[in-house]
Amino acid sequence: MKLATFEVDTPVGPVERIGAVDESGDAAAGDATLVDLTAAYGAALAAEGEPAPADLARAHVPPEMIAFLERGDRAIADAREALEYAAETDAERGPGGAKLRYEPGEYRLLAPLPRPNSLRDCMAIEEHVQNSMDGEIADVWYELPVYYKGNADSVVAPGETIRWPDYSRIMDYELEIAAVIGTRGRDIPADEAEAYIAGYTVFNDFSARDIQGEEMKGRLGPAKGKDFANGLGPYFVPREDVDVLSAPMTARIDGEVWSEGTVDEMYHSFAEIIEHVSQSETLHPGDVIGSGTVGEGCGLELGQWLEDGDTVALEVEGIGTLEHTVVE
Amino acid sequence: MKLATFEVDTPVGPVERIGAVDESGDAAAGDATLVDLTAAYGAALAAEGEPAPADLARAHVPPEMIAFLERGDRAIADAREALEYAAETDAERGPGGAKLRYEPGEYRLLAPLPRPNSLRDCMAIEEHVQNSMDGEIADVWYELPVYYKGNADSVVAPGETIRWPDYSRIMDYELEIAAVIGTRGRDIPADEAEAYIAGYTVFNDFSARDIQGEEMKGRLGPAKGKDFANGLGPYFVPREDVDVLSAPMTARIDGEVWSEGTVDEMYHSFAEIIEHVSQSETLHPGDVIGSGTVGEGCGLELGQWLEDGDTVALEVEGIGTLEHTVVE
Repeated sequence: MKLATFEVDTPVGPVERIGAVDESGDAAAGDATLVDLTAAYGAALAAEGEPAPADLARAHVPPEMIAFLERGDRAIADAREALEYAAETDAERGPGGAKLRYEPGEYRLLAPLPRPNSLRDCMAIEEHVQNSMDGEIADVWYELPVYYKGNADSVVAPGETIRWPDYSRIMDYELEIAAVIGTRGRDIPADEAEAYIAGYTVFNDFSARDIQGEEMKGRLGPAKGKDFANGLGPYFVPREDVDVLSAPMTARIDGEVWSEGTVDEMYHSFAEIIEHVSQSETLHPGDVIGSGTVGEGCGLELGQWLEDGDTVALEVEGIGTLEHTVVE
Repeated sequence: MKLATFEVDTPVGPVERIGAVDESGDAAAGDATLVDLTAAYGAALAAEGEPAPADLARAHVPPEMIAFLERGDRAIADAREALEYAAETDAERGPGGAKLRYEPGEYRLLAPLPRPNSLRDCMAIEEHVQNSMDGEIADVWYELPVYYKGNADSVVAPGETIRWPDYSRIMDYELEIAAVIGTRGRDIPADEAEAYIAGYTVFNDFSARDIQGEEMKGRLGPAKGKDFANGLGPYFVPREDVDVLSAPMTARIDGEVWSEGTVDEMYHSFAEIIEHVSQSETLHPGDVIGSGTVGEGCGLELGQWLEDGDTVALEVEGIGTLEHTVVE
């Protein structure tokens, strides 16, 4: 199951919904038919004779991703039921006349979490660190999964054009997978951590390398070098539905393969990262944690940069292709 | 005017409200009488004959600080009207029987922003950087206001006891002022920046120095060294009501003065910081930006650390005293 956040125009303004890709087709992100999960769950309830199907559906499958994640694994189970019902029924509408399906052109795809609760990004893959840090890896890197905290307000939608900041001339991407937290927790042991991950999405940690290199000399980590754009999406896939460690990852720039890898290369696993991050800190549904860039997963490692008008497509098999165009 | 977020117990569970200190007394934080601003605004409307005073009051003076800040300067003006009305009336209750005033013991003081939209912390005071970074200040520090992003989910209430993380033995405080953003903006020039600041609060950037020093060698900035606790409060003071640059700041540990200073020492002003941060990034109401520690404003600079059971009281004249006890 591939979950999406999308927006539809209505006479009272745009409305945000959550959906799942209708897998009966085989369409690229943005060209898929989406099943409106809240509407479909309501339709299933109505078919069973539930007298207040729309209200109950909003409680079971809230049409906003963080509220949805708050229900933990139960939300995922209810979403699966809704998707199954939609596949079986010929009906086009659910309770209150809500559409069950949206065809391409009828919706705008948003990031699965348009505004995560928080955004942390690790640097857990040794080859990337080796290539990025002039070959010098600090001892602490092996001891702890170091990370910086990103700007959760700077998430861009799949397909959105990114206007590069005026203060930067060196445009780069980073090929990553992000884990999405689905269950609140604190002091989580690594061997219990997987249950706290609702699922995964593709993460493009766009990087303005010139300012990033400068500001990091100030020792507080990256900020302006990272915080103008975070690509997340196109879909969010429950953890049971993707073998995230073996999923092939590819970055294509204007169709040409620049990077390939898997997060199986991670020196610190997502479970170990969650153990570390959650010490004396509470993790919340909607927290996003990036793996760090795979080896040779960015232009910095390859000695080549993005150019004005380039399209960056990050594909993770089983999740989808996250595409953005950068312009100066 | 000193604004507060507070919580009261009700038969349907705890309810969050916003208030202002009743300045007719002269009480310490937590011992002040608070005027419930939403209730008082509603009482003023009712006295004018408004037929739906409670609903209108919730829209004008929302009882949640970020929603309140969303209204910008108009919210502050409405809050002043509410406070004036409460000072003039003998009534104890507003529309729907809502209490206008809460005495000490009738409320729990929360941080003015219990969950800021985001938390950035600068390091804008040269003496602190000189003292903290082994005397080596990177050139970039003079060129840019460098900052790290904190954990907005780790804000602790004024008076709350802080259990130090198990992974740290070196307990420190940092004496800072934080600016609270009240108006959404992007690419804000420094000379227009002040209007985007709703006001100021006291900020204690608690720091676990052992882990902080270690993880910063990984070059992504501090995380576990900072993210377990952020003290904000006790009150939030509108920018017109405090001369923030000249306000004396004092840190007392178990009553003994350890640190004194003002943010007038800032090398990069709040206005310059806002110009820098808002380049290609949108600032939102409820974003919090710390000044950085004043010179000799933490134990690291003084060569002495907090001990189990110490009470840390940070006072900024015109804002209030923010007090926490740390325990191992």
